[in-house]
Amino acid sequence: MNKLITEPTHRFLRACYGLPTDYTPIWMMRQAGRYLPEYQAVRSRLGFLDLCKTPDLAAEVTVQPIDRLGVDAAILFADILLICQAMGQHLEFTAGHGPRLEPVASESDIERLVVPDPTDECGFVMETVSEVRRRLAGKVPLIGFAGAPFTVATYMVEGGSSKSFSNLKRMMFAEPALYRRLLDKITEATTLYLEAQVEAGAEALQIFDSWAGALTAPDFRAHALPYVQRMVESLSNKDVPVIYYVGQAAHLIEPMVESGAEVLGVDWRLPLSEARRRIGGRAAVQGNLDPCVLLGPVELIEERARAVLEEAGPKPGHIFNLGHGILPETSPSHAKALVDTVHEYRRQAPA
Amino acid sequence: MNKLITEPTHRFLRACYGLPTDYTPIWMMRQAGRYLPEYQAVRSRLGFLDLCKTPDLAAEVTVQPIDRLGVDAAILFADILLICQAMGQHLEFTAGHGPRLEPVASESDIERLVVPDPTDECGFVMETVSEVRRRLAGKVPLIGFAGAPFTVATYMVEGGSSKSFSNLKRMMFAEPALYRRLLDKITEATTLYLEAQVEAGAEALQIFDSWAGALTAPDFRAHALPYVQRMVESLSNKDVPVIYYVGQAAHLIEPMVESGAEVLGVDWRLPLSEARRRIGGRAAVQGNLDPCVLLGPVELIEERARAVLEEAGPKPGHIFNLGHGILPETSPSHAKALVDTVHEYRRQAPA
Repeated sequence: MNKLITEPTHRFLRACYGLPTDYTPIWMMRQAGRYLPEYQAVRSRLGFLDLCKTPDLAAEVTVQPIDRLGVDAAILFADILLICQAMGQHLEFTAGHGPRLEPVASESDIERLVVPDPTDECGFVMETVSEVRRRLAGKVPLIGFAGAPFTVATYMVEGGSSKSFSNLKRMMFAEPALYRRLLDKITEATTLYLEAQVEAGAEALQIFDSWAGALTAPDFRAHALPYVQRMVESLSNKDVPVIYYVGQAAHLIEPMVESGAEVLGVDWRLPLSEARRRIGGRAAVQGNLDPCVLLGPVELIEERARAVLEEAGPKPGHIFNLGHGILPETSPSHAKALVDTVHEYRRQAPA
Repeated sequence: MNKLITEPTHRFLRACYGLPTDYTPIWMMRQAGRYLPEYQAVRSRLGFLDLCKTPDLAAEVTVQPIDRLGVDAAILFADILLICQAMGQHLEFTAGHGPRLEPVASESDIERLVVPDPTDECGFVMETVSEVRRRLAGKVPLIGFAGAPFTVATYMVEGGSSKSFSNLKRMMFAEPALYRRLLDKITEATTLYLEAQVEAGAEALQIFDSWAGALTAPDFRAHALPYVQRMVESLSNKDVPVIYYVGQAAHLIEPMVESGAEVLGVDWRLPLSEARRRIGGRAAVQGNLDPCVLLGPVELIEERARAVLEEAGPKPGHIFNLGHGILPETSPSHAKALVDTVHEYRRQAPA
């Protein structure tokens, strides 16, 4: 938190830096997404990747949940796998099957991957960032994002989603030099990509390590964390907070602190009281409602939201979020009920 | 552990009850499976479900890893979803897609499910148990098993594998009476099924709660644990130890103790030293090598196996296992190297 020069005024950015806020800010992972009819309306006109690559429409869906739900931050509409395509890997999204990539398996596959100039290969993302900033006009901050190297590598090596990540882990255990070469390259590409997002106007960054929870703490320290540390260190001369989200990280919170990120995002498995105790004031926390709770009745949503806020406690430095992306089957009115509950819960005196 | 009348002699059963053993016993989840060429040879002749239902061949594949690897226990070749079929749900296994079930969604779907007499509907399982006991001739104990009600319900309601378990969790949050009715029925059927396995000759039982790690600790206590407690309580008049395995349970070990099971099985995310500290001597532990380690070189397997044994410490009451099923791409020689490493590590003086 040594890069903070002047105190930000928006409650989301203040919470990132552990500063007091009038109430707990909230945003939701995948808040620009399929649960919103206005998103579906846009999406019906073009494919997922095409939408990512059409700045005007990507900006439109980025802003939709701000208007509809009143969340305290916008997150760029994009995908963590855009970087794979920019690095030269074939990528497609097929309806019902998720992402498909030509798996990276050999040394020559890795050597063929390029570290692209993000403004060339992902110029559409930077245009979206600029367009979103124009549309938001300072109403809420915009979060840029990328996948963490380990998580991106799972897709690159498995060729898509996986349960066991056995191909990547095999490489990690059996061909460690190859593994490092791949992760180094992803790290380099992703760092440039995130720097470009900040230059285009992103006011905070989230690094998604959705699958690093599949590692033991020693393996996480050896094979995932160092790449994130390097990214966070490189980004430290940019004046934006970094949020490091790890899925299923109940056993990883101590090494996550060593990432250097201002905010650590966790899922519902780890109670926030325990997260904060183990973090010991060295980072703010983000989370952590089970997104399935939003499928229950509004009274349950209110009760569970308040339980998360109680767990987080009155100390500043909590950003409310789900523990994973909002589910497509969620009713927008339930998402709105969550935002309202969080906003009404504890209105602290502004600093 | 109050049901122990006479001390068992086999090291696997002794370890289940926390008694000293000459060395740490080991078996592997899915040890009767696709990584073995002799399994593939049998499997090439018939489908997966047909193999489960052919006692002679199911017994053959159950015994294969005992001969090949020298593990200290056999586990019945069967599937946790056989109970769904016995309860009247349509089930099929399609190559590459895993299990497919006709999803249970409504009250009438649940009412249609029956609590079968396991010797009628799953007689082939009991025949397999008897046949395995004959073939083993006391060499190693035979473990019977079933899925825990929550985990079985994920398949019944989702209609197969799932990432978010959103349909079952929606039922849990939005239709709690329906959820309880379903779980009660699964619990009743599964208890009878496990009792029948013991009567047929199973000498220990494992309850697989592979997906309960997707619940917060409060939800686990409210919506998964009570059904397991009821099963363990019902089984307590049988003279066999119960192993309760929960995947991704780093945040659940305290409530798992309340299951009443003699042994708690955990995956690689939770270090065994921490598991044992939090269990506080109230149960033995089983685990917990990452199955992907077996894809690495033998030196790494030896090093990591010893690290697990160090974490478990010298106190009796540790059964070595993987943290999840052995992967189909594992080399049998690597699996054998693991067994040998564990057996050679620490030969305690027999009690």
